Amino acid sequence: MTRFVDIEDMRQLVSLSGVAKFISQLVDYIEHDFRRWPEFDKTPRIASHSDIGVIELMPTADAELYGFKYVNGHPQNAFHNQLTVMAFGALAKTATGYPVLLSEFTLATALRTAATSVLGAKYLMRKDARQMAVIGNGAQSEFQIIGFHEVLGLTDFWLYDVDSAATEKLMGNLNACHGIRLHFCRSVEEAVAQADVITTITADKTNATIISSAQVKPGVHLNAVGGDCPGKTELAADILHHAEVYVEFTPQSRIEGEIQQMPADFAVTELWEVINGTRPGRSSVAAVTVFDSVGFAIEDFSALRLINDIATRHNIGRDIALVPSPKNPRDLYSLLVRPE
Amino acid sequence: MTRFVDIEDMRQLVSLSGVAKFISQLVDYIEHDFRRWPEFDKTPRIASHSDIGVIELMPTADAELYGFKYVNGHPQNAFHNQLTVMAFGALAKTATGYPVLLSEFTLATALRTAATSVLGAKYLMRKDARQMAVIGNGAQSEFQIIGFHEVLGLTDFWLYDVDSAATEKLMGNLNACHGIRLHFCRSVEEAVAQADVITTITADKTNATIISSAQVKPGVHLNAVGGDCPGKTELAADILHHAEVYVEFTPQSRIEGEIQQMPADFAVTELWEVINGTRPGRSSVAAVTVFDSVGFAIEDFSALRLINDIATRHNIGRDIALVPSPKNPRDLYSLLVRPE
Repeated sequence: MTRFVDIEDMRQLVSLSGVAKFISQLVDYIEHDFRRWPEFDKTPRIASHSDIGVIELMPTADAELYGFKYVNGHPQNAFHNQLTVMAFGALAKTATGYPVLLSEFTLATALRTAATSVLGAKYLMRKDARQMAVIGNGAQSEFQIIGFHEVLGLTDFWLYDVDSAATEKLMGNLNACHGIRLHFCRSVEEAVAQADVITTITADKTNATIISSAQVKPGVHLNAVGGDCPGKTELAADILHHAEVYVEFTPQSRIEGEIQQMPADFAVTELWEVINGTRPGRSSVAAVTVFDSVGFAIEDFSALRLINDIATRHNIGRDIALVPSPKNPRDLYSLLVRPE
Repeated sequence: MTRFVDIEDMRQLVSLSGVAKFISQLVDYIEHDFRRWPEFDKTPRIASHSDIGVIELMPTADAELYGFKYVNGHPQNAFHNQLTVMAFGALAKTATGYPVLLSEFTLATALRTAATSVLGAKYLMRKDARQMAVIGNGAQSEFQIIGFHEVLGLTDFWLYDVDSAATEKLMGNLNACHGIRLHFCRSVEEAVAQADVITTITADKTNATIISSAQVKPGVHLNAVGGDCPGKTELAADILHHAEVYVEFTPQSRIEGEIQQMPADFAVTELWEVINGTRPGRSSVAAVTVFDSVGFAIEDFSALRLINDIATRHNIGRDIALVPSPKNPRDLYSLLVRPE
């Protein structure tokens, strides 16, 4: 049988430790997998684009497990009060192909995206950073804030969204969180004025310039999350020219990331190289670092591993008959017409 | 909610019409989709190879629906009494990314593979063909025979497998089928002697020569099903040199099909071109035709459509909470921590 984790199961699974501790565990799992990056079978995600959205498959595998995620991006869903991003994922045994886990991954995607941002900042931001601007206060913003506070000790979050209702929602959700101070801002300028870390996590599927070069002070770390598919960027190209730019998987980031604005030979460092010590991270206190994050399959793989580990340990979810268990594997016909 | 069709549901779904009529419906669905081939977003399947097997994702989409299948191939599973091929698939709305169906696809893969073979033969075999050799009597062989009998009126099936227990299993399963005559053969030579159609559907992951050129008489149609991944072929290259060769999706077939043995410019015709009338099929009664079938995503898409149509009409399967339905789509956090 294959274990199935639905939305309610995922709530239960995360509630065992709480959101903050879950993100912290996820940072550890992703860090572990990024450190052994060369062990993975890697490919840019496979995208199917339509006029109004994209549906993607994101597979990866190591010698033990194969994982993939289905995820969409449909900004216009928001106009119909629907989610713009939905996902589900599966984990199988590499040696047999047998699927062991099928899981909701909409909530998990928000959690793993925050965990990946935190992991990038753990290696790239200034150690004394405490203040973060959060530009874009949609569905993923709470997870970013909780993760940066829990794992990296950031305390002050300067919030801006073109729709102030989003900021109010965010403040309402996190106003009781001990140690987190939230500041409502009326402009990007106001939000970034104090920031050691600038997180951009907007939803528009356009080449936007959310942040201009003049707004980026020396020593800032840019956590660029929202620019994640062709034609969707958030940073002025000028910022990238003067920054140290880090990505997940270069072939995918050149298509989807902020660096789609740059020449094909624009120098970048893959984050895993910094984590396992083969390449340097931030070169100086005054350098501007950019984590041009688009989301890579290994992050989903790490999250699927964590979900599977917790679900197995606490028996969360239920068994489903996703694949047959015939008495004679060469006799599918009997299985179909004569139930055992 | 997303509809989930498990193994038992699929049994029920197919039993409404029986296997023969289900395959016949599936031929109609695949034919409909092949006829409008240019409307689909197409890509070769994305394979993750290990030393002992492969796991693949097979996506495609039209303006209305997006479909994909997960499928593995692990020949050594047979030594542990496990299935060598397992699959599941999903269907989503292209305009929103919302998943409408998640379905078992192990049984469905056997059914759609037979339906695709039947569709190829419908356009390529001699109209007076009645006799088929079936080389390889494993899990898919019953479905091939039922499909060729039901849709194309073939009556006599000459069966050979290196393991005679497989042939006995096949004969036991289909011996009560009215109008189907089964002939046990002790060699490939014996099986192909009478054959108008030769179906090769063996499981070995090697460059095997199941059929040699001398065994192929003028006018035969070769339904080459088993050669379907790099390093796995069944026909002598010499056969292909003297035959009219038809494939599903050329970029994928050059990697995976019998034509992986041939130069990159070896001439082939895509089956959909014959179906919609843009290219000729069989040139003469004496020509040898080969349908070098590897399995393409549109066939799975057609099967997912059929499964979804029947399941919806007869309310088969059950709703699962695969993706969330939040009151406020920008507030995943509340959905996670404060169940509605």
